[in-house]
This record gives sequence, structure tokens and C-alpha cells, in this order.
Amino acid sequence: MKSALSFLVAARECEIGELEQLALTSELVNLVGQLIHALQKERGVSNVYLGSKGRRFGEQRAPQALECDALARQVRERFDVLYSDPHGVRNGARLFARIAAVLQGLDDLPGLREQIGARTLDADQSTAAFVRLIAGLLGVVFEAADSATDPQISRALVAMFNFMQGKEFAGQERAFGAMVFVGGRVDDLDQRWQLLIDTQERCFQVFANFADPTALQTWRALRDGPKLAELERLRRVGRAVRAGEPLDPQLGQAWYDGCTHRIDAMRTVEDRLALHLRTLCEQRIEQTRAELHDQQAILGSLSASGPQTPAPLGPQLERSILDMLQEQSLRLQAMSDELDTVRASLNERKVIERAKGVLMAARKLSEDAAYKLLREAAMNQSRRLVDVAERIIEAHELLGPKA
Amino acid sequence: MKSALSFLVAARECEIGELEQLALTSELVNLVGQLIHALQKERGVSNVYLGSKGRRFGEQRAPQALECDALARQVRERFDVLYSDPHGVRNGARLFARIAAVLQGLDDLPGLREQIGARTLDADQSTAAFVRLIAGLLGVVFEAADSATDPQISRALVAMFNFMQGKEFAGQERAFGAMVFVGGRVDDLDQRWQLLIDTQERCFQVFANFADPTALQTWRALRDGPKLAELERLRRVGRAVRAGEPLDPQLGQAWYDGCTHRIDAMRTVEDRLALHLRTLCEQRIEQTRAELHDQQAILGSLSASGPQTPAPLGPQLERSILDMLQEQSLRLQAMSDELDTVRASLNERKVIERAKGVLMAARKLSEDAAYKLLREAAMNQSRRLVDVAERIIEAHELLGPKA
Repeated sequence: MKSALSFLVAARECEIGELEQLALTSELVNLVGQLIHALQKERGVSNVYLGSKGRRFGEQRAPQALECDALARQVRERFDVLYSDPHGVRNGARLFARIAAVLQGLDDLPGLREQIGARTLDADQSTAAFVRLIAGLLGVVFEAADSATDPQISRALVAMFNFMQGKEFAGQERAFGAMVFVGGRVDDLDQRWQLLIDTQERCFQVFANFADPTALQTWRALRDGPKLAELERLRRVGRAVRAGEPLDPQLGQAWYDGCTHRIDAMRTVEDRLALHLRTLCEQRIEQTRAELHDQQAILGSLSASGPQTPAPLGPQLERSILDMLQEQSLRLQAMSDELDTVRASLNERKVIERAKGVLMAARKLSEDAAYKLLREAAMNQSRRLVDVAERIIEAHELLGPKA
Repeated sequence: MKSALSFLVAARECEIGELEQLALTSELVNLVGQLIHALQKERGVSNVYLGSKGRRFGEQRAPQALECDALARQVRERFDVLYSDPHGVRNGARLFARIAAVLQGLDDLPGLREQIGARTLDADQSTAAFVRLIAGLLGVVFEAADSATDPQISRALVAMFNFMQGKEFAGQERAFGAMVFVGGRVDDLDQRWQLLIDTQERCFQVFANFADPTALQTWRALRDGPKLAELERLRRVGRAVRAGEPLDPQLGQAWYDGCTHRIDAMRTVEDRLALHLRTLCEQRIEQTRAELHDQQAILGSLSASGPQTPAPLGPQLERSILDMLQEQSLRLQAMSDELDTVRASLNERKVIERAKGVLMAARKLSEDAAYKLLREAAMNQSRRLVDVAERIIEAHELLGPKA
């Protein structure tokens, strides 16, 4: 029979295994971030192309597609590494289903590009296709953040996920604005634009709660930089555009360049976050290995006193085992508590997503409209978005067909 | 590169792996339940022995210890199975640390029994040692419930865990009452007794929310049976006992027998829960295997159309892949939502435990006293226990040294 100490050692070994898995996932997350960045650019380029009836950005399409494809290949290689060792993957069922959805989207890219080239779909439809694919990729990042077992790494992943999500809304704003500047007013222009700004803010707020100081500083310097005023001015101009009256092409270019500059800068924040994540994983692995080493030394001196016998331990050794047990259990408890706190922010997101789903089904709304309704209800009631979302889910459970 | 469909299949395979792991864990939980039952009996017997200054139940001690040891050996064998394949274990770090604590407690049993035999500790101290060991075993069950990835199985495990926890409070009440009937009044008798009754009720309430109908019916028949009135009468008599005036030994025996009858009957409910759990695991595995089989058939017809080529799928096949992707993603989303709901009850427990810890540290209280304080605050404020607990943790975070 295995001893208490053997299980303590095995617990550490499991911890190291979980940390190594997290290190792999973190690298994947970083690569996914790069692919998303390239797809965001392709979406923007495609929108200007479609909005200008093929007159502008035509020559930028092919190189941008090549960049996306090269990164997609790298991401798929990482996916294949996970595939080759499914037992090492936490939450394999959910992660792999997310990956399957992403692969389907990547397979559809050539067809999408053909349609864009032939202009057989409009900017809204093209945007929607890219948004879906990027949402799938963010889903992979979300699974990674949700399955982290180490609170520090979980914090870093939650910060990363929220930043990437915020950047994606910034990318959607770029594409939406590009469509408007080049093509003129669209339906619900004001609300849609405001929503894209609000959702960015919300994500960056959560990011700020969990980010490491360096990444946060980089972000703040960027956010409060001189370019912001120009962006705000262009937002104002864009929202005042009239139906069928496209704006000065120079303005459209300025909008696209300004947004791109901002989004590219965001990518540098992501790089910082990724660096922090990598360092953190390495540190935690090293630290846990050192602790394991200490425990194994004690186990060694224990088994030297005779194999399989109910070891007559010296009182000092017995004390140190008890101390280790207590220390490990306190530490795991503290980690579990902290993990719950960090996860709460992910759960909030799940609750809001679910409430949106309820509203979409019950009132036949689009995702945007459902979110808008939620947000208005929260503002009217001076409540947090997540509280309103929870009430909607509760009410649905009481009133719905399940009851 | 692996295709979307390969990942869909891999997702199912992971699901099956997770379910098989759950089936193993469920068997372990059942065996742990049997060991806890035997330890609860040994605790009761030991208390009567100590309370009667060694005059009663002396002859029952040795066979009860043997029963415990035999079951402990079986549990340890299961632990060793987990040990031999740590990568297959979810939450290995935490589960193994819990197991280490249990093994330490089991190793201490012979020493504890010696002290009880020599009557060098009192009934309170003996109870505390058994309570600690059983709490450790329940910790193993809690980890199992907390790491379940299938909502139906998670429900069954949450029901099981709460029932076992409730039964343990019933066991503590038996031991506490036995000590009182045989030894006379103790400090804080009324509050301590009430607390044991209340905590039982709370656990059985959560159990009732998650249990399958058969187990629930078995439990209700038992709870509302004719024996309950007699138990309530004895509770009343016991709580009126005077200091230093032990009661009629017949009453003590009646108390012990009545409680034992009730607790043994609870064990039959646990058996039902275990049976349900096993059936559930088998069904879910079979069902997921069937679904995997269907997917593999499609994958087969796909790869028959040529290896490694960007397969020119027929539109019908492409449609069925899209359907599968969507169906699987909806199903996983629904499972994840339901899992969150089930887990909420475990999270409530964690929150209450943490608030107790805060109170114990801040006001130098015992665990019982901290819980009592929480409960009184909840009653005074007409709030749920978990809400009060949350406020305490929030306040602590604002006021505490971390801030």
C-alpha cells in the first residue's frame, strides 16, 4: 500500500503535469492571438474593398490572406500536438469541440475570399463570417482560461482572454466604421457603434482587474495616448454620416489607419501578456519542482528505514510529514479559494451569454439587440449587468417550458 | 493536418475517457461511504465506552475496529489504483493531497484506539479524532463531486456528497448524545445539539434538490417513519439532562440503538444513490460510445474519398458535418450551463467554509462557534446563510491585511 507521503509526492507531480499543460496551452493562446490579429486585418481590408465596390484595397487582399494562412498552419500544428495526446488535455471534450468549430471555419475561408473577390456578398455578411471564425478562436482561449488550475496562471489567462475579446470588439469597430465611412449610413448606426465601444470598455475593465502591472502600464500608456482624441473625433464624424452619402475618402483612410494603429498597439500589449504568462508558467513549474525535490528527499530517508514495514519513524520525521501535510492542504485550499475568485469573472461572462441566449430565443432578437436590451435594463435599474442577467435566467427557469 | 471531424471524434473520445474516470471515482465514493459508516459506528461505540468509564461496549470495540480496518484496506487498494495512473485523474493535485491526509489519519488509528482502551483521552477528544478522519474522507468525495464534467453525474455526486455529509452530522449527534446520556450535562449542550440537528437538515435539503426520485423516496419513507417521534422524545430528554447526573442507562441504550437504526437505514439510501450513480455512468458511457460510432462511420466514408486530399465532399455529407458540429456545440453548451447550476451548491458550501475560517481566525472561535455565529446572523437578518457568508468574506477582503 502506498503511504501518505507517496500521495503527497504524487500530488506535486500532478501539479507539475498540470502546470506543464498550462505552459503548452499558453503558447497556443499566444499563437491564436496572432492569427486573430491577422484575421482582424483581413476583415478590415475586405470591408474597405467591399464598401468601395472593389475600388480600394484590392491589392492588399492577397498578401493579407497569405499571412492568415501561414499563421493558421502554425495554429493547426499546435492543435495536432494536442490531438496526439488527448489524455494530457484538461477539458478535452469541450476544447476539442471548440477546435473542430474553428477548423470548419478555417476550411471555409477560401470560399469566403472568393465571394468577397467576386463581391457576391456585402460588407455586413463578410464581417459576420470573420466575426464567427474569430469568436470560435476566442472560444478556444476561453476554454484554456476556464480549465486553468493555478490561480496565478488563471489570472493571467483571464486578463489575456478579456484583452483579446476587447481587442476583437475594437476590430469590429474598425470594420464597422470602415463600412460606414466608405458606404454611408446603415440601420441602427448609433446604437451599433455605441455597443461596440461599450463592450470594448467592459472587457478592458475586467482585463485591468486581472492584468500584471507591466501589461497594465503598457495598456494605460496606449489608451491615454494622443491618438485617442483623433479617434474620438472620427467616431463623432462617422456617427453623423448621412444615408447614401459616403464621406471624404481621406476620412475613411484616416479612420482605418487610426484604428489599425491602435489595434496593432494592442497586439504589443498581448505580447507583454503572453511573455508574462510564459514567465509565470516557468516560475511555477520550477518552484513546484523544488518543492517536490524536498519531499522526495524525505521519502528517500523514509524508505531507507526499510521497505514495506510500518516504518518506525523518528518523532522529528513524523513531525515534518505532518507539517508538510498541513502546509500542502492549506496551500491547496488557498489556491482553490483564489481560483474561485478569478473564475467568478468567467462565470459572469457565461451568465451574461446565457441571458442573451434566453432573450434571443424568447423575443426573437439578434445577439446585438439582446445585449443592448440587457445593458439598457441594467442602466435603468442602476444594477450590474450580471445581476440583471441572473434575474433573467431565474425568471426564465420559473416561467419557461422547463418549469 | 487533422480535420474538423477528427477533432469532433477526439472530443467524443475524451468525453468517454472522462466518463470512465467518473465511473471509477463513483465506485471509490461508494467504498468510502462504507468505510465512513464503519468509522461512525466505531466512534459511537468508543464514546459509550469512554463515557461509561470503560464499563460498557468494551467487547464491541475489537470487532468494530476489525471491520474498519478491512474496509480501509479496500479503500487504500482503490487509492493505489488511482496512484498507478495519475494522468487519468482529474484534479490529481487536490485529490491526492486529500488522500494523503486520509492515509495519515488511518495510520494514526491504532494509536488512537490504544488511548481509548487505556482511557487516556476523553469522549470529546476521541470524537474529534474520528470527526477529523471522516472529514478527510468526505473531502475525497467532495473532490470527486467537484471534478465531475457530466452534469447528470455531477448531480448524482452532489446528492451523494450532501447525503453523506448529513449522515455524518447524524453520526456526530449519536456520539454527542451517547456522551451526554452516559456522562451527564456538558458545556453549551443546547446549542451544540441544535447545531448538529440544523446542519443535518441543511445537507438533506441540498440532497433532496439533486437526488434521483428513487433515492429521494427511500429517504422520505425513512425520515417520516414512526421511529422519528421516539428520536425526537429522546432528543428532548437528553437536552434536559443535569450536570453530573447521568441518565438511566436504559435511555442511553435506547438513544444509541435508535440513532444506529436511523443511521443504518441512511446507509441503505446511500446504497441506492451508489446504484443510481453506477447505472448513470454505464448509460452515459454507452450512449456516448454509440454517438462516437456514428461519427466514425461518417469519418470512414470521408477518408474513403481519398487520404490527405482536401476532400471534395458531397453537399449532403458536408451538411451532416455542419449539423454534427452545431449539435455537439449546443449540447456541450447546455451541459456546461447545467454543470454550473449544479456546482453552485458546492460553491455555496465553499463560501460558507471560507466565511467560517475568516470568523475562526478573526474572533478566535471554534468551528462550531463560528458556524453558530453565521447561522444566528442569517436568522437575525432573514438572509440566506450563503449571503451572510459572502458579505463576511467581502468585508474581510476590504478590511483584512491583504487590503
